[in-house]
Amino acid sequence: MDLATVIGLASGIAMILVVILTEGNLPAYANLHALLLVGGGVTATAFIMFDLRTVVGSIGVAIKAFRENSWNLEAIIDQMLSLSKLARTNGILGLEEAEKQIRNPFFRRGIQLAVDGNEEGLIRFIMATDVSFTRERHALGQKVFRQMGAMAPAFGMIGTLIGLVDMLRNMEDPSEIGPAMSVALVCTLYGAVVANLVFLPIANKLEFRTKEEALAKQVIIEGIISILQGMHPKLLQEKLESFVPPGMRRPGGSERPSGQGPVEERAA
Amino acid sequence: MDLATVIGLASGIAMILVVILTEGNLPAYANLHALLLVGGGVTATAFIMFDLRTVVGSIGVAIKAFRENSWNLEAIIDQMLSLSKLARTNGILGLEEAEKQIRNPFFRRGIQLAVDGNEEGLIRFIMATDVSFTRERHALGQKVFRQMGAMAPAFGMIGTLIGLVDMLRNMEDPSEIGPAMSVALVCTLYGAVVANLVFLPIANKLEFRTKEEALAKQVIIEGIISILQGMHPKLLQEKLESFVPPGMRRPGGSERPSGQGPVEERAA
Amino acid sequence: MDLATVIGLASGIAMILVVILTEGNLPAYANLHALLLVGGGVTATAFIMFDLRTVVGSIGVAIKAFRENSWNLEAIIDQMLSLSKLARTNGILGLEEAEKQIRNPFFRRGIQLAVDGNEEGLIRFIMATDVSFTRERHALGQKVFRQMGAMAPAFGMIGTLIGLVDMLRNMEDPSEIGPAMSVALVCTLYGAVVANLVFLPIANKLEFRTKEEALAKQVIIEGIISILQGMHPKLLQEKLESFVPPGMRRPGGSERPSGQGPVEERAA
Amino acid sequence: MDLATVIGLASGIAMILVVILTEGNLPAYANLHALLLVGGGVTATAFIMFDLRTVVGSIGVAIKAFRENSWNLEAIIDQMLSLSKLARTNGILGLEEAEKQIRNPFFRRGIQLAVDGNEEGLIRFIMATDVSFTRERHALGQKVFRQMGAMAPAFGMIGTLIGLVDMLRNMEDPSEIGPAMSVALVCTLYGAVVANLVFLPIANKLEFRTKEEALAKQVIIEGIISILQGMHPKLLQEKLESFVPPGMRRPGGSERPSGQGPVEERAA
Amino acid sequence: MDLATVIGLASGIAMILVVILTEGNLPAYANLHALLLVGGGVTATAFIMFDLRTVVGSIGVAIKAFRENSWNLEAIIDQMLSLSKLARTNGILGLEEAEKQIRNPFFRRGIQLAVDGNEEGLIRFIMATDVSFTRERHALGQKVFRQMGAMAPAFGMIGTLIGLVDMLRNMEDPSEIGPAMSVALVCTLYGAVVANLVFLPIANKLEFRTKEEALAKQVIIEGIISILQGMHPKLLQEKLESFVPPGMRRPGGSERPSGQGPVEERAA
Repeated sequence: MDLATVIGLASGIAMILVVILTEGNLPAYANLHALLLVGGGVTATAFIMFDLRTVVGSIGVAIKAFRENSWNLEAIIDQMLSLSKLARTNGILGLEEAEKQIRNPFFRRGIQLAVDGNEEGLIRFIMATDVSFTRERHALGQKVFRQMGAMAPAFGMIGTLIGLVDMLRNMEDPSEIGPAMSVALVCTLYGAVVANLVFLPIANKLEFRTKEEALAKQVIIEGIISILQGMHPKLLQEKLESFVPPGMRRPGGSERPSGQGPVEERAA
Repeated sequence: MDLATVIGLASGIAMILVVILTEGNLPAYANLHALLLVGGGVTATAFIMFDLRTVVGSIGVAIKAFRENSWNLEAIIDQMLSLSKLARTNGILGLEEAEKQIRNPFFRRGIQLAVDGNEEGLIRFIMATDVSFTRERHALGQKVFRQMGAMAPAFGMIGTLIGLVDMLRNMEDPSEIGPAMSVALVCTLYGAVVANLVFLPIANKLEFRTKEEALAKQVIIEGIISILQGMHPKLLQEKLESFVPPGMRRPGGSERPSGQGPVEERAA
Repeated sequence: MDLATVIGLASGIAMILVVILTEGNLPAYANLHALLLVGGGVTATAFIMFDLRTVVGSIGVAIKAFRENSWNLEAIIDQMLSLSKLARTNGILGLEEAEKQIRNPFFRRGIQLAVDGNEEGLIRFIMATDVSFTRERHALGQKVFRQMGAMAPAFGMIGTLIGLVDMLRNMEDPSEIGPAMSVALVCTLYGAVVANLVFLPIANKLEFRTKEEALAKQVIIEGIISILQGMHPKLLQEKLESFVPPGMRRPGGSERPSGQGPVEERAA
Repeated sequence: MDLATVIGLASGIAMILVVILTEGNLPAYANLHALLLVGGGVTATAFIMFDLRTVVGSIGVAIKAFRENSWNLEAIIDQMLSLSKLARTNGILGLEEAEKQIRNPFFRRGIQLAVDGNEEGLIRFIMATDVSFTRERHALGQKVFRQMGAMAPAFGMIGTLIGLVDMLRNMEDPSEIGPAMSVALVCTLYGAVVANLVFLPIANKLEFRTKEEALAKQVIIEGIISILQGMHPKLLQEKLESFVPPGMRRPGGSERPSGQGPVEERAA
Repeated sequence: MDLATVIGLASGIAMILVVILTEGNLPAYANLHALLLVGGGVTATAFIMFDLRTVVGSIGVAIKAFRENSWNLEAIIDQMLSLSKLARTNGILGLEEAEKQIRNPFFRRGIQLAVDGNEEGLIRFIMATDVSFTRERHALGQKVFRQMGAMAPAFGMIGTLIGLVDMLRNMEDPSEIGPAMSVALVCTLYGAVVANLVFLPIANKLEFRTKEEALAKQVIIEGIISILQGMHPKLLQEKLESFVPPGMRRPGGSERPSGQGPVEERAA
């Protein structure tokens, strides 16, 4: 589970509830019309903007924002290094056995392509195509949430305008003006909360995850190509760890290979 | 018919009507001036921004947002695979007969170019030019709706300002202030609804359709080129299905070709 | 004359006048301060933003938005086809006589370059440079209007703020508050109308015209190069008409050249 | 002096003063808090955003918006043509004497590089590097003003909010509400005027100047390279004048070189 | 310490306090709910948008905005020049001793790569990869602050809406309306101040620093490559100082190397 998303969402909702409960009165903020207009309006426009499959699928996409990042860079690098050692002793074909133990499908597919004897350029092409298609699909998922985040305040305002138009028409009883405006404003509040606490942050988290996944996939591609080229495990480690932010690198990881290690090998 | 657009638009309008009917009074929201200013203002600026043909043509473009996506990826791939088998037994010229049964004009034109004996590079060039020109024309259609979506709230605000300027001039009778403001605000409401429920979502749907069409055309181009190169139908299927989002792929589609199938063939 | 611009602008102004006249009172909307602040403020900032020549020249640029598009694609293609036939019978030098009858300076210059015996690459370079410089100059003209459209609402708001600050200072007589606010709001109204009915739509029309011109020039460049290469008129027509939106193509235009016509010729 | 900037700024301020003086009362618009918050807030955030040198240096940059454009295209082309004639009679080395009379440092440096016998590619590289670095430095200057233009309304609003929070707390005496709100609104007015009449237009003028400078430098680079290649002065003139907007070209400038002049020379 | 950030932030806060103290009453602006909603809401959404490590790490990133720029261009150029002289007398290997005294890790790593005998292209590749990864990591840090700056006003408005909804519900006692609205508005004030005085300016400073660092690293890369190529120290100085803004260059730095110095050497 992605603790950050859960903590953020829970504490955000909690804070708003605390402020409402100590300042006002919860039932005043529960409003069926506001729910209908903001929730329904956002869903309706999403249907117009995209298609049924995309909108329904966006629920599954949203769940990803609540799941732990499954791309552990360090684990990937460790596994790559042991494959690298295996390949240096048993040859590329020696990876066939190890391949079956790789659980990440993208990683396994890459090793499979290498074991099948495909050449470097082809492997890079196939894997990069996968990366670019995945990114495009994810971008669509993010766009659904971003558009919902843009629409929510608009429908909140539409609800408030409907309320105001009605209230202003019959202002005979001044004591009713306040409560009527209060009800009208709740719509704007719903739109602002839903957009800024749910839709926009989730769109951002999905974008963040996509970048993490793309980075991990890049590490996998570079690693497999380097194994094919017979790069020394020491150099491979240095190369792959250059993708890891400095604060996350393990001690000793970025040391210089001992003197005789020709750096040219790294250039491949 | 594009169910998503119809459901979205109908439910969006229904929701707004439900809120109006239970909260207020429908006639209060019917306002000829608001209709004139928002509807007319948006049309007038569209005429200034584009030309007669483009504005009138945008009605036809809008209809596309209500029609089913006519680019069925799976059907295209199926047809491509049977053409591929045909070409392997009868040669490229053997496709001449099959060509006449292809209903999609872009697909048929591509097969025609192949049957005519044109070389790969030329076919790719001609078909890619078509894709890029179509995309530009569609982008213009989307822009008309996007600009109308940007103008509608502005003209709604202009209507409200006209109403307010008049109302504020003669405030002798306080009991008239409310209703006058109510009428003024209806303009803003019209602008917000028309922009957020009609123009902007339709612009988005058109963009969504354009992307679907571009993807389908890319599959067609890749398929025809691969047939020309004599790619094995099994590999062709794997290649073309890589364009289909994973959730939509048919079972069995992405299996690895049996052992001896050289993956190099795929690299063409 | 560009009917769309004239109709759009006239009907937009008419609609606003109709609403004002039936709802309020025209003199209430005539305000010298609003005119001075919005009109003058926008002009003053345009002077700060650009230079004298550019601002004064923008009046001439605006006139272009009211003139008919002078780039008739069909006429250009017709003329190009007759030149193509001429060149096939009399050779490139045979175009010298015809050149003098071409009224479009860009078209004539291109034929001139071809008749002078320049090579393909050079002609393309010279003509493309002209296209790119023209586009940059036009972009500047559009920017003047776009910036004026961005400044008008700001100066409208400045006028309203000046009015409000004054009104709020002396509110002894409540009966004067309404009219004073009414006067203040007129500034905002002026800014909104001028920006959304004049400046922004005209900037957009100029951009639209620039694209039409660029497309026509591209057709001319492609046509001249193809004539130089001796392309068959039938193929030339097909090639050039691919630049015309499908709905505008003449019947018969996009037919396939009869069998023996080698499509390779088209690839040049 | 850049008359456009001076006229624009002076007339903009004059118009606002005229409106204030005829409508209200000047002292009501003089407000130390507003000055402190908008002027000070904008300066403070500029310090946080950039560094001391950049912020202090932006004063010098702003002065450039008030100075005449020092890049006179016509004068540069005239000088280039006489250098071209000199080079054709005396050779490149014959420019050494003339070099000392060129006052524009960029122009002089280019001639210097040519006289020193450097090759074409190197001269182009060195001069283009200068152009790109200058553009980046200017972009920073523009950004300072653009950010100040974005911050001014925000600090105006902060001032108004501070005033409103205080005013709303003690509303016992209704006669004080108006004046208090008036004072609060002055802050918003200051922010709007300073942003829209000063910061944003100056940022735009600086961008406009940068483009003029880049164009002049491009003419200088093209001219020097062409002189090195021994281009005929007639052709050089035609080439360089293609950079000048048509309305500014001198009569006779764009005439076609007489028959025997090989256009290929121009292609260099 | 970065004086500009400290001065800007301190004077910005001071100015706001001065205005509050002379105009109003400090305690009226202290509001726990506003603090909770703006501070808490911004933090909560940051957690949803990014992950725990990134959000917590952004505190460390913010500290960078308060630290002096550690990339002194002049010092780097001086050091590079003395290394250049050393390399010309003792050869590249002669830099091994000097390498240990370089405190900047990026600089030292570059010299190390050169001493190890790697070729030009490889050194440039390794160092440019480092630059691009660093820039991407810094961009993430800036994005955290930019998003917080976008969220703060939204949560300020949510707080104000909650307050207004409650206030409007019970307006029996008109004397309480003012104070209640005052409290509600404090939330908007908090959001505006935090966004415009803290988050957005700090995001900008981080971006400014990133550009300074990228420039310094570019100077280091160019310097090391030039040393490898044996460029004359005089020319190296001229080349590297072309990266320094003119106003910052030391007198004499940009002089022309004496006559016999072949400029071609500079082209490397």
